[in-house]
Amino acid sequence: MQLQDKAVILNTRHSPYSRLKPVSMIDILLQSGFWQSRVLLNQSVTIHSQFQLLEKTGRLDNFRRVSGDSSKPYQGYVFNDSDVYKWLEAASWMLINNHDKKLQSLIDYVISLITNAQDKNGYLNSCFSVDKVRERWTNLQENHELYCAGHLIQAAIAHHRVTRHSTLINVAIRLADHICSTFGLSQVFGTSGHPEIEMAMVELYRETGYVKYLAQAAIFIDRRGHGLLGGREYLLDHLPIRKLVHLVGYAVRALYLCSGATDLVLETGDLPLRTTLDLLWTNMVNQQMYITGGIGARHDGEAFGKPYELPNESAYAETCASIACVMWNWRMLQLDGDARYADLIEWTLCNAVLAGISLDSKEYFYVNPLKDDGDHRREAWFDCACCPPNICRTIAMIPGYMYSVSTEGIWLHLYAPSKAFIELMTGQKVEIQQTTSYPWDGDITIKINGLQPSHTLQSGSINSDLFSLFLLLPGWLAGQKVSIKINDKPYRHHAVSGSYLEIHRRWQLGDIVAFNLLMNVRFIESHPLVDNDIGRIAVARGPLVYCLEAVDNPDILLSEIRINPSAQPGIEFVPDLLGGMVRLRISASLRPIDADWNDILYRPIPPSMLHANYHEIEAISIPYFAWANRIPGAMGVWHLINL
Amino acid sequence: MQLQDKAVILNTRHSPYSRLKPVSMIDILLQSGFWQSRVLLNQSVTIHSQFQLLEKTGRLDNFRRVSGDSSKPYQGYVFNDSDVYKWLEAASWMLINNHDKKLQSLIDYVISLITNAQDKNGYLNSCFSVDKVRERWTNLQENHELYCAGHLIQAAIAHHRVTRHSTLINVAIRLADHICSTFGLSQVFGTSGHPEIEMAMVELYRETGYVKYLAQAAIFIDRRGHGLLGGREYLLDHLPIRKLVHLVGYAVRALYLCSGATDLVLETGDLPLRTTLDLLWTNMVNQQMYITGGIGARHDGEAFGKPYELPNESAYAETCASIACVMWNWRMLQLDGDARYADLIEWTLCNAVLAGISLDSKEYFYVNPLKDDGDHRREAWFDCACCPPNICRTIAMIPGYMYSVSTEGIWLHLYAPSKAFIELMTGQKVEIQQTTSYPWDGDITIKINGLQPSHTLQSGSINSDLFSLFLLLPGWLAGQKVSIKINDKPYRHHAVSGSYLEIHRRWQLGDIVAFNLLMNVRFIESHPLVDNDIGRIAVARGPLVYCLEAVDNPDILLSEIRINPSAQPGIEFVPDLLGGMVRLRISASLRPIDADWNDILYRPIPPSMLHANYHEIEAISIPYFAWANRIPGAMGVWHLINL
Repeated sequence: MQLQDKAVILNTRHSPYSRLKPVSMIDILLQSGFWQSRVLLNQSVTIHSQFQLLEKTGRLDNFRRVSGDSSKPYQGYVFNDSDVYKWLEAASWMLINNHDKKLQSLIDYVISLITNAQDKNGYLNSCFSVDKVRERWTNLQENHELYCAGHLIQAAIAHHRVTRHSTLINVAIRLADHICSTFGLSQVFGTSGHPEIEMAMVELYRETGYVKYLAQAAIFIDRRGHGLLGGREYLLDHLPIRKLVHLVGYAVRALYLCSGATDLVLETGDLPLRTTLDLLWTNMVNQQMYITGGIGARHDGEAFGKPYELPNESAYAETCASIACVMWNWRMLQLDGDARYADLIEWTLCNAVLAGISLDSKEYFYVNPLKDDGDHRREAWFDCACCPPNICRTIAMIPGYMYSVSTEGIWLHLYAPSKAFIELMTGQKVEIQQTTSYPWDGDITIKINGLQPSHTLQSGSINSDLFSLFLLLPGWLAGQKVSIKINDKPYRHHAVSGSYLEIHRRWQLGDIVAFNLLMNVRFIESHPLVDNDIGRIAVARGPLVYCLEAVDNPDILLSEIRINPSAQPGIEFVPDLLGGMVRLRISASLRPIDADWNDILYRPIPPSMLHANYHEIEAISIPYFAWANRIPGAMGVWHLINL
Repeated sequence: MQLQDKAVILNTRHSPYSRLKPVSMIDILLQSGFWQSRVLLNQSVTIHSQFQLLEKTGRLDNFRRVSGDSSKPYQGYVFNDSDVYKWLEAASWMLINNHDKKLQSLIDYVISLITNAQDKNGYLNSCFSVDKVRERWTNLQENHELYCAGHLIQAAIAHHRVTRHSTLINVAIRLADHICSTFGLSQVFGTSGHPEIEMAMVELYRETGYVKYLAQAAIFIDRRGHGLLGGREYLLDHLPIRKLVHLVGYAVRALYLCSGATDLVLETGDLPLRTTLDLLWTNMVNQQMYITGGIGARHDGEAFGKPYELPNESAYAETCASIACVMWNWRMLQLDGDARYADLIEWTLCNAVLAGISLDSKEYFYVNPLKDDGDHRREAWFDCACCPPNICRTIAMIPGYMYSVSTEGIWLHLYAPSKAFIELMTGQKVEIQQTTSYPWDGDITIKINGLQPSHTLQSGSINSDLFSLFLLLPGWLAGQKVSIKINDKPYRHHAVSGSYLEIHRRWQLGDIVAFNLLMNVRFIESHPLVDNDIGRIAVARGPLVYCLEAVDNPDILLSEIRINPSAQPGIEFVPDLLGGMVRLRISASLRPIDADWNDILYRPIPPSMLHANYHEIEAISIPYFAWANRIPGAMGVWHLINL
């Protein structure tokens, strides 16, 4: 099976159990602001620096070696091909509205390397194609061949959606066909140690319409949990996903599996599986998630902890796990448009994910603690480099997370200055202009900038301008009301925070919806069972979690700062702070520094330390995602309270 | 070289660089109280239950297999012989003042198994003596042969000191000779992955007078740190001990090495090595030690953390590491009688070590957290069973930690109801009677119960009754003065807590020294750099660290208890509490339970939670060592403060 260039294809709009349908990134144009600045740096800096690192670390040589164009031995981990594929997926998305000829030629070059490394039988993995051909598919627990295949398929779909060129998607199809003929129902009884192939197979089904890929995804998902991978909890093979109650094991693997399973539900409506996913999601969010949205508490096994096990300094919170969480929530959101998923996408992107990359877009965190002594710094690359190209492709896809459509109308999930050219399910085209400086400020204006006259539609329906606009009122509003004006007149509504406000009306060209998501500073406590946060509070404003960093609070032991939650902090946008940020001035008190410690570890607490002579200070706080971008020093998210 | 039964032997009294000389356990008779109850249970319960476990787990079969009396395969870890040796050392010490015929026959039986398993060339290790003879000494990093040999030597010395029988010591001597001829200066250039042989070789030198064993200990110590063991920090092979600044790596290995190195200093006066040991000790105590005396913060590698890395819930604090710490401090104490070592011996024994064994003396902790949710429970045995027989031999040796002598007189380190028959360096014999209910109460009476008339001494010195009694004024007194009466008359002194009070006088039969170590409850804070304890206090009384346990404080979330340090807690001895303990009634406040949480993880802190409606409670606290002996539940050492 092969696709022709410019072939008409199916896409996710047709997922039968999906209430929401995505709006293609091709139709979204970021115009300025918070997200555009990251997207532009991603295009100008990250993608090129990562290409050089792929080359420097032998990841491209590994492909040349298969085609005989390099005589070097295989370099790095068995899963190194996946880094090339993730880069390629990111680069492909970047071709939208972008005339970077150099990037175009890099993409074509990498595609040629990949194409030349594919076996005649469709197999493709540079590690097992020269001296290790006999080891193909022999160690599904460790060897990551299906994982790498999944990333190739996703890269190929991205490239095909953006360019309509069929070279890479046909490589992916040949590989997928080889996998289906190897791992089909009556073939090798195996599944992938690291999930990823499941999502990729469902998406390839959406892209090509061939149901065998969907079936193969279902096979991989339901073969898991029966001991084929040694029964290891680390690999989520100790129990079938349908029997899980809590997420356990390697967090990235767990959430890639949940993402693939949700894709399956979107296509098949599998209700028992959906019930399980709901339960796992609820337990994860209510018991296993850092306030940043980070997940996977343990270094040991890169794993979920037990409920409420959320150490701050030793937090793992792998960047890839947060990215996986965004992926999973996006799929859950499609099911029925429940705002809690959109809330978590924004929250995780703004905090846990963005912290994974430096403000200059060249360095990365693999691990994201919520407290540090200044030793933890971002690095340009890792031997196990899953996170850097993963965050690159995630930022490249930001515009794709902004909108959805449904039969009812248009859904707005992420606020950013932008134009969107949206085709409703009726076929009618609407252009929406967003104006805002969100997330630094909560003022947002939505303008109907274009509206295709209904008489030009094939249906000719006179009700074609009657549709709903669904605006996310984020959960972080925490009960605060949102006043809305349409064309300067108050619009009454009863929507609460953490839901979509539906505005159902006959829309006209030039209509303006204006509202303000109130951004008071919030002092947040965690559930009493989270021992690590007992007696402490965190600070947030809008969708951003804040932290204290030593560089802003010199000569103070951060851990001794006691925040006064009765006083409202000062809020100031500082243009020259880290590229422009809102920082907070928080009222706090500080124990006097005690010169009598003499460097011993323990002492009876002197009465003078108990009361009275604390002095007032103003602690300076910056968004968590921006930490570790200046001189090294301590950082903390959870602070003592001054009661 | 062989010893004859009842041969006259040298002992540590002759270590030339040792100010203090030990008083043999043979001369100490515990009479009742805190320590005697543990020692008696150790003799009546622990030693017999452990023998059954050695048998059940194949540890004795492993020896029978070598002599052809068992056809089973080798069972368990490569270091399993060491558990038998540690048991044998404990059992040998128990023969003092004990007429347990069954134990005597078990000892003889185990000695016969060991003797029969020794190779003609002196080699002895059951794992490498049947099918793995060729692997002898081939993997010094992992195979623990020198470690096991060290424990055999120590067991043999104990058996020889107590019984004067030479069977086992001659086995040990043959093995030691084999080791010296294998690893001597011009032979195999290796050292042991797990230190232990160093201490054993020095002690064998003390026992036999043969200096080659001392030289071999020095060789093993100074060969370490040069990459012979792969240069691994885990094995303390990354740097020579003389270049270490902080303890790192596996805590047990590190402190066994330090103990062996201190033994070397005691014999050779190696001043640079002593300087290093002082530095390592100071940095350990001031930066790397739990308030319980536990050491080794990390599960990963069972290792020391970096300075001030002292997580409570994930603390490792292996029981064996605390035992090693006692061993090391005992050796440091001999150097010059510095009270800080004696202080730490008592503190570690009472808290970190005793917590390692259940009150019924049948179950053990390997890992000793300072905070737990109730899941961590003692077990009857472990596959890696280093801790159970180690704690058994440590408790068997308690009387040996009570006294020392020096040219100045008698040193008293541990207070317990007891008789001691002490021979001064002059040869004069003194009988001392201690009466106290320490550590439940600080009242102590020391009576000169017997005093050999000076005219019966060979020297005939008229000053023979003129000697000093050195009484440890523990560091936990934290500056409190100690009033002393001699024969009911106040005795003026200027000694401070954390030092020895020297009473220099002409002693007479019947002299009584009475004093009270004031046992107010102390609220202790930790150094501000210990992030895990910031804003928290711990509770201690006398040498005991206290904890809160859920079973005493039902229906309360322990972590929400805020202790009021301005109020003195109630102190009550409860005879039927865990065999008789002092428990504390601590004034504290508690946040109201909030039904509005709805099981979410995070929320803006409601103003009502900030102030006012906390209610007063009385929190019940028990000694830390006694935790987890009743129904499972949460436990914590560090508590929030109610300011």
